[in-house]
Amino acid sequence: MSKPYKKILITGAAGRLGTELRRGLAPLAETLVLADRVACENLQPNEQGLVFDLADEAATVAATEGCDAIVHMGGAPLERPWEEILDSNIRGSYHIYEGARKHGVKRVVYASSVHAIGYHGINDGIDADAKPRPDSLYGVSKCFVESLASLYWDKFGIESACIRIFSSFPEPADRRMLWSWLSFDDCIRLVTACLTTPHLGHTITAGMSDNKVKPVNMSNSGFLGYQPQDSSEPYREAMEAKTEPADPNDPATHRIGGWFVNLGHPNDEAAE
Amino acid sequence: MSKPYKKILITGAAGRLGTELRRGLAPLAETLVLADRVACENLQPNEQGLVFDLADEAATVAATEGCDAIVHMGGAPLERPWEEILDSNIRGSYHIYEGARKHGVKRVVYASSVHAIGYHGINDGIDADAKPRPDSLYGVSKCFVESLASLYWDKFGIESACIRIFSSFPEPADRRMLWSWLSFDDCIRLVTACLTTPHLGHTITAGMSDNKVKPVNMSNSGFLGYQPQDSSEPYREAMEAKTEPADPNDPATHRIGGWFVNLGHPNDEAAE
Amino acid sequence: MSKPYKKILITGAAGRLGTELRRGLAPLAETLVLADRVACENLQPNEQGLVFDLADEAATVAATEGCDAIVHMGGAPLERPWEEILDSNIRGSYHIYEGARKHGVKRVVYASSVHAIGYHGINDGIDADAKPRPDSLYGVSKCFVESLASLYWDKFGIESACIRIFSSFPEPADRRMLWSWLSFDDCIRLVTACLTTPHLGHTITAGMSDNKVKPVNMSNSGFLGYQPQDSSEPYREAMEAKTEPADPNDPATHRIGGWFVNLGHPNDEAAE
Amino acid sequence: MSKPYKKILITGAAGRLGTELRRGLAPLAETLVLADRVACENLQPNEQGLVFDLADEAATVAATEGCDAIVHMGGAPLERPWEEILDSNIRGSYHIYEGARKHGVKRVVYASSVHAIGYHGINDGIDADAKPRPDSLYGVSKCFVESLASLYWDKFGIESACIRIFSSFPEPADRRMLWSWLSFDDCIRLVTACLTTPHLGHTITAGMSDNKVKPVNMSNSGFLGYQPQDSSEPYREAMEAKTEPADPNDPATHRIGGWFVNLGHPNDEAAE
Amino acid sequence: MSKPYKKILITGAAGRLGTELRRGLAPLAETLVLADRVACENLQPNEQGLVFDLADEAATVAATEGCDAIVHMGGAPLERPWEEILDSNIRGSYHIYEGARKHGVKRVVYASSVHAIGYHGINDGIDADAKPRPDSLYGVSKCFVESLASLYWDKFGIESACIRIFSSFPEPADRRMLWSWLSFDDCIRLVTACLTTPHLGHTITAGMSDNKVKPVNMSNSGFLGYQPQDSSEPYREAMEAKTEPADPNDPATHRIGGWFVNLGHPNDEAAE
Amino acid sequence: MSKPYKKILITGAAGRLGTELRRGLAPLAETLVLADRVACENLQPNEQGLVFDLADEAATVAATEGCDAIVHMGGAPLERPWEEILDSNIRGSYHIYEGARKHGVKRVVYASSVHAIGYHGINDGIDADAKPRPDSLYGVSKCFVESLASLYWDKFGIESACIRIFSSFPEPADRRMLWSWLSFDDCIRLVTACLTTPHLGHTITAGMSDNKVKPVNMSNSGFLGYQPQDSSEPYREAMEAKTEPADPNDPATHRIGGWFVNLGHPNDEAAE
Repeated sequence: MSKPYKKILITGAAGRLGTELRRGLAPLAETLVLADRVACENLQPNEQGLVFDLADEAATVAATEGCDAIVHMGGAPLERPWEEILDSNIRGSYHIYEGARKHGVKRVVYASSVHAIGYHGINDGIDADAKPRPDSLYGVSKCFVESLASLYWDKFGIESACIRIFSSFPEPADRRMLWSWLSFDDCIRLVTACLTTPHLGHTITAGMSDNKVKPVNMSNSGFLGYQPQDSSEPYREAMEAKTEPADPNDPATHRIGGWFVNLGHPNDEAAE
Repeated sequence: MSKPYKKILITGAAGRLGTELRRGLAPLAETLVLADRVACENLQPNEQGLVFDLADEAATVAATEGCDAIVHMGGAPLERPWEEILDSNIRGSYHIYEGARKHGVKRVVYASSVHAIGYHGINDGIDADAKPRPDSLYGVSKCFVESLASLYWDKFGIESACIRIFSSFPEPADRRMLWSWLSFDDCIRLVTACLTTPHLGHTITAGMSDNKVKPVNMSNSGFLGYQPQDSSEPYREAMEAKTEPADPNDPATHRIGGWFVNLGHPNDEAAE
Repeated sequence: MSKPYKKILITGAAGRLGTELRRGLAPLAETLVLADRVACENLQPNEQGLVFDLADEAATVAATEGCDAIVHMGGAPLERPWEEILDSNIRGSYHIYEGARKHGVKRVVYASSVHAIGYHGINDGIDADAKPRPDSLYGVSKCFVESLASLYWDKFGIESACIRIFSSFPEPADRRMLWSWLSFDDCIRLVTACLTTPHLGHTITAGMSDNKVKPVNMSNSGFLGYQPQDSSEPYREAMEAKTEPADPNDPATHRIGGWFVNLGHPNDEAAE
Repeated sequence: MSKPYKKILITGAAGRLGTELRRGLAPLAETLVLADRVACENLQPNEQGLVFDLADEAATVAATEGCDAIVHMGGAPLERPWEEILDSNIRGSYHIYEGARKHGVKRVVYASSVHAIGYHGINDGIDADAKPRPDSLYGVSKCFVESLASLYWDKFGIESACIRIFSSFPEPADRRMLWSWLSFDDCIRLVTACLTTPHLGHTITAGMSDNKVKPVNMSNSGFLGYQPQDSSEPYREAMEAKTEPADPNDPATHRIGGWFVNLGHPNDEAAE
Repeated sequence: MSKPYKKILITGAAGRLGTELRRGLAPLAETLVLADRVACENLQPNEQGLVFDLADEAATVAATEGCDAIVHMGGAPLERPWEEILDSNIRGSYHIYEGARKHGVKRVVYASSVHAIGYHGINDGIDADAKPRPDSLYGVSKCFVESLASLYWDKFGIESACIRIFSSFPEPADRRMLWSWLSFDDCIRLVTACLTTPHLGHTITAGMSDNKVKPVNMSNSGFLGYQPQDSSEPYREAMEAKTEPADPNDPATHRIGGWFVNLGHPNDEAAE
Repeated sequence: MSKPYKKILITGAAGRLGTELRRGLAPLAETLVLADRVACENLQPNEQGLVFDLADEAATVAATEGCDAIVHMGGAPLERPWEEILDSNIRGSYHIYEGARKHGVKRVVYASSVHAIGYHGINDGIDADAKPRPDSLYGVSKCFVESLASLYWDKFGIESACIRIFSSFPEPADRRMLWSWLSFDDCIRLVTACLTTPHLGHTITAGMSDNKVKPVNMSNSGFLGYQPQDSSEPYREAMEAKTEPADPNDPATHRIGGWFVNLGHPNDEAAE
C-alpha cells in the first residue's frame, strides 16, 4: 500500500513535538521535510532538512513547494514578548498559509493550543471547539491562526485541523497535567487522524490523552477517529506524592489554561 | 424465563437484514412471522412464512393480527423510481401502522436509514435524531415513516423505534463503511434493545457499530442500552489497500449519505 | 420598476387562501396562473385559469411550464381519509416538485401547516422550524412535503419556503385563533417575503399574525423580513364573550395543533 | 503521602451508604467523624462517633468544628411526612451549611437524589445537572439543598458537590435499578472524586454505575474524573427471571424517578 | 361577559404589590379574598378580608377553601433571618399549596423573585427560566417554592406561574431599576396574563417592564401573552442626575440580583 | 449633570464614522481627542487633534494618556494587502490596548466588522456573537482584535465592546444594505450604549439598524440597551428600482459578508 502523502513539511521539526513527529509521521509520507531555525540532526533517508526563520516569507513560501501537506508546529511555543509572537506566530503562520495557497498544498495540521481558550473554566463543560478566550499573547496568536485557517478554507479550499494541544510532554510534569496531558504517542495518533481523515474542512479540536479527568466534551470531534490510548493515571501517585495540592481558588487551578492565566504581560517581564 | 414476545412480525424477512434477524430475534419471541414478497426458505419450527406485497393493504393488515411487535424491514432498500418508493415504502409502511393500530400491536421497530439525513455534513456534529435532510426519494420515504410513527405514538399509543441504519453488510464494502458500518450482530443487538427497553415512546436513533470514526453523537440514545461490540477497524488495512482514497471535496465524502447525494432523479435513470 | 416574476403558478387558487393570494400576489408577477380542480371565477387580465387535479402528474407538470415560481396552496386543507391525503397532498406535491425540476422553476412557496408540528406543547418554547411532530395524516403529508422540498433544494437547487400556516381565516374563528390567527393580509405579506427575499434555500417558517400570545420563537426567521401588521387582539373581547373558556387539561388547549390532536383516524370516521 | 484531609464529618454515618463510606473514605482523612441519630458501631481508631439530630442547630454546628470537609448523607432517605422532611432535610441541611460557614469548612459533598429531577422522562436526554423537577417532598428538599449549596458557594466560597444519587444498594433490587444502580464501590469512587478534584465550586452531578442503559448524558461532569467500574449487567438475567416486565405506559417506567412519581402525598398516607 | 374566577385569594394583600393587585385583579373575580397578617383597609364590596399568619397551617389551608385561584404574594419580601424565611416563605408557601391541593384550587400565581437567580451575570444572556442561582436565603426560599410548584403540577395537577419579579415599585428607585423595573400596571398585566392564559402548567417567567435594557431573553414566555406597556426610560435622566454612576466591577452592578449579592448572612446582621 | 467621561480618544476620527462620532459623542465627554493619520478639520472647543500612525507604538500609547475611554475606529476600513492589515489593524490595535493598559484606560469600544463572521450564511440564524468565520484578511484582523480584547479583559480588567458593524453609510448603498445598514445615528446610539452601560466586560455585539430583514438574533445583546431607531425601508423602493435583483446562488447573496466573500487575495490584486 502506497503512502498517503508524497511530501509533508513539518515546521518546528527540531522542537519537542517536532522530533516525535519525525518518527510518528514517517509512515504517512515518502519524504518528510524538516524545517526549523536550527538544523535537525540525524537526518534519515526519508527526511530532508531545511533551515529558515518563519518570519522570512520568501523562505517559508519556498519550503512549501512540492509538499502535499504541512504539519505546522513551528513558532514560539509559549508566552513571549509581543514582537516575537508577532514575527514567529502571526507573520510566520501567515507565510505558511500563503505557501500552501501558492503551491497548492491541500491540508494543514496546525499546533494550536489550550491557551487559545485558557480562560474558560475547568468545569464550564466546554466543547473541543469552544469560543476563543485566550490567556496570553501566545494564546491570541493561536486564535489568529485559527481564524486565518478558517479563511483559507472558506475562500481558498485549503483544509486545516487546528489542534488545541493541551500539555504534550514525555510524561505529566505537574498536577494539572494529570488531566491536560497528551502523550507523544497520542499526539502522533491525533496528527495522523487529521492527515488521513477523508474530509477535514476547517476543524478545531483538542488534544488530550485518555486521562481520567475530562473537562472537555469531545463528542463533536468523533468524525476524526482519534482514539487516545494513553492515560496520565499511572503517573498520579508519584505526582501527588511529590507536589502540593492545588489551591482550589487559584485561577490556575480552575481555568483551563493553568498557570498561563497568572502571567503578566510578557513585555513587562522581559523589561525586568 | 419466558420470552418477552409471543409473535413478532418481521417484514422484508427474505432480505439481507431480514435473514440475519431470523437468527437474532429468535430468543425474543415464541414465533417469528416471516413476511416478504418471496417465500423465506428453510422455515424453522419457531417460524411462520407469509408471502404478500406491502402495497396490498388487506394482506398487510391481516399479517399483523395476533402479533405483539413488528420489525419492519421491508420495502425498497435503496433509491428506486418514485412509483416503487410510493408503493413499497410509503403506502406499505402506512399499511403496517394501520395493521398495528387495528390489531393492537404495541411496538414497531422500523428500518429507517442514514439517507433520511444524508445531506448533513460528516463533521456537523449531528445527534442521533438530527432533523430530516434526505438525500434521495428513498430517504424522503424514510422521513415520511418517521413522522408517521410519531403520529401513531402521540395519537394511538403505538411505540416505535426508527433506526437510521447506516451501512449494514457482512463486512465494510467501501471506504465510507469504515465509519458507517453496522455489523449484523450489532444490528441484532440494536433491534433487540429497541424491543426490550421498558419504555420506547417514539424514538429515532442511529445504527452503527463501534467504529473508530464516529460522526454522530449518540448520547441522546443512551437510554436504549445499545452497546455495539463490533468495529470496522480490522477491515481497515485491506480496504485501504484495495481502494483509492476518497476525494475530500466530493460531496459523497463529506456528506453523511455518501454516494446517494450524487445520485440523480431515479425516474430519469430508470428512463435511460 | 418591473415585476420580479413573469409567471407564478398558484395551486389551490379557488380556495380560501388562493383567492386572497390572487389579489395579494398580483404585484409580483406579470401573469398569475390560477390552478384548481374547479375553475376560478372572474379571471382578470393578468390571470390565466387552469383546471386539473394534482393527482394527475402529466397535467400538473405541464402546468408548471413557463413559470418562474410556484405558490403551492393546493391539496386537502384538513384531515381527510388516507387515500385522499395520499393523492392530493403526497402525490400531488411530488408532481409539483417534478414540474419545477423539469421546467426549471427556481422557487416554490408551500403551504405547510401547524399540523406538521401539532403535538408540540404550547409552552414548549418551540422555534419556527421545530422538529416534525404531526397531529394527523394531513400533518404527516405536510412533513412529507417539507422533506421533499429539502431534497429538491439540496439535490436540484430548487428553493422552497415551507410556511407552517397556523390559522388563516378572515378573522379569528375560535379562542385558539386568538394566538394562532394569520390574517389574510399578513399571509400575503409572508408569501411575498418568501418570494422576494434574495436567498431562500430550504426554509421552514411559521405563519401567524402579530398576536399578543406568541408560542413560537420566530427569531430564526428574521432573515425573511416578514413583519406581521395585524393582531387578533381587536377580536378578543367578542370572542371571549361568545365562547366558553378552554379546559386547561384538554390536549386541544395545550398542544400547538389544537383540536386536531383529538381527532381519531380519518378512515374510521369516514367509515361511520 | 499524607492524607488530603485531617477530619471529615460524615452525617448519616449509621445508614446504608454511611456505613460504606466509613470504609471507603478512610484513605482520605486522618479522622472520620461519624454522626447519626444513633451511635455507630465498631468504631475504629481513625473514627470518632457523634450522636445528635440534624434538627438540633447547635449540635450540628458544633459537630462541624475542626473538620475540613463534610460528607452530608444524613436526613430522611426517602419520602416522609412534611414535618420530618422539613426538620431532617431542610432545617438539618441548613444547619450543616451554617456549621461549614461558621467553622471554615471548605468543601461539602451532599447526597442529593434522582428524586430532585424525578419527573424528567427517561428518554428526554437530560444532562447530569438537569433543571429541578422533583417527584416528592423528599425531592423538593433535595432541590432546596442544591440551591442552598449554590448560595453558600457564590456568597461564602464553600464548595459543594450535590450528587444526585440514583439507586445505591448492594445490588440492583428491581428492574429499574438495571439502569439506575450505583454500586457501593462506585459511590465511594464518586464521593472520593468530589473530595479530591482540585476545584469543585458548586457542582451538580449524577451517581450511577457503568450500566448498559444510560439515560443521563454525563459529559458535563467529566472534569470530576469519576469513572464507574461496576455494572448492573451481571444481575440482569436473574432480575428479569424473577420480576414482571415493566408496563411501558406506567409513569414509573418512563420517568427518571421511578415509583416515586406514583406516590401520593406523604401526609395523606401517614394519616391512613 | 362573566368574570373568569369566582374567588381569588390574594396573600400579602396589605403589602406594596398586594394593594395594587386589589385594584388590578378586580375585573377577574367576583370576590377577592384579601389575606395578610394585618387587616386590609377600605374593603370594597367585592372584597373579603382575612387576617392570619402563613405559618399557621390550619388558617392558611382554611383560607383557600372555595377559591378557584390563589395569587400568592405573601411572606417576607426581602432578606430576613433564617427562622423568618423558614416560617413565612418556606412553611407558609407549603401551606398555600396544601390548601390548593385539599380544596381543589386549580391555579396559583406565585411571586417568585429575581433573587432566585441573582448570581447570574447581567450579560450572561439568561432566559426567563434560568437555572436556580439564589443570592440570599430569601432567594433560596423562592427556589424552594418554584420546585414545590413543579411537584404540585406534575403530581397533583395544580397549575402555577412562578413570576420572578425583578423590581416592582411606584417608579425606579435606583440606577439598577432602570433595567429591572416592573411598573405596578405591568405587574397587574403579567399576573392577569398568568390567570387568563388557557394552559399554564408549571411556568417560570420573569417580570420586568419594557425597559430599554433587557438582560433577560423572554422569548420562551411568549405563550403567556404578557406585553409590558411601561418603561423606565422617562425616569432615566432624573435618576442619573441624582445618583452616582455604578462601579462596573462591583458585583452589584454585573449580577442580576444587584445589591443582594453583597449582603452577608442575615443572622449575622440580625445579631449585630 | 456632569458628563460621564473626561476625555475620550477617537481613532480614525477623520474617517466616515469618525466624523459622525465627533458629533455624536460630544455629550459623553468634556474633551474628545481626535486621532487620525491626517489632521481633522474644524476642531471645536471640546476637541483636540492628534496626527499619528497607529503603527507607531510610542505615539499611539502616548495618545491614550489621560483618556478614560477609547473609541477605536482607526485602521484599514476594508480589505487591503497583508502588510497594511498587519500594520494598521493588527499592530495598531495592539498599540491601542497597550496604551489602555499602561495608562489605565478602563473601557474600549472597537469597530469590529461583519467581515469577522462573513462566511456565516444569511439564514443560519446566527447570534450577535457568532463564532469567527472571517471573509478576508481584513476580517481576520477583526477576529484578532476581538480575541485581544478578550485577553485584556480577562487578564488586565479593561472592558471592551467589539461592535461588528455591518454597513454604516449615509444611506443604503446597495441591495444588501437593505438588511445590513446601520445608520449613522444608530451607530452613535450603539457606541453610546457601549460607553454608558454600567458593566461591559468583554462584549461582542452586532451593529445594524432596525431594518425589516434581520438575519442576526440580537437577544443576547439586550443588556446593552441599544435600540435602533432607523430603518432601511424608506430606501427600498428606490434601491430596487435602480439595481438588479441579487442572484440567489451567488455567495455574495447568501453569506453575511456579501461581496467580500468573492474577493481574491488582496496581495494578488495589489500585484496586478
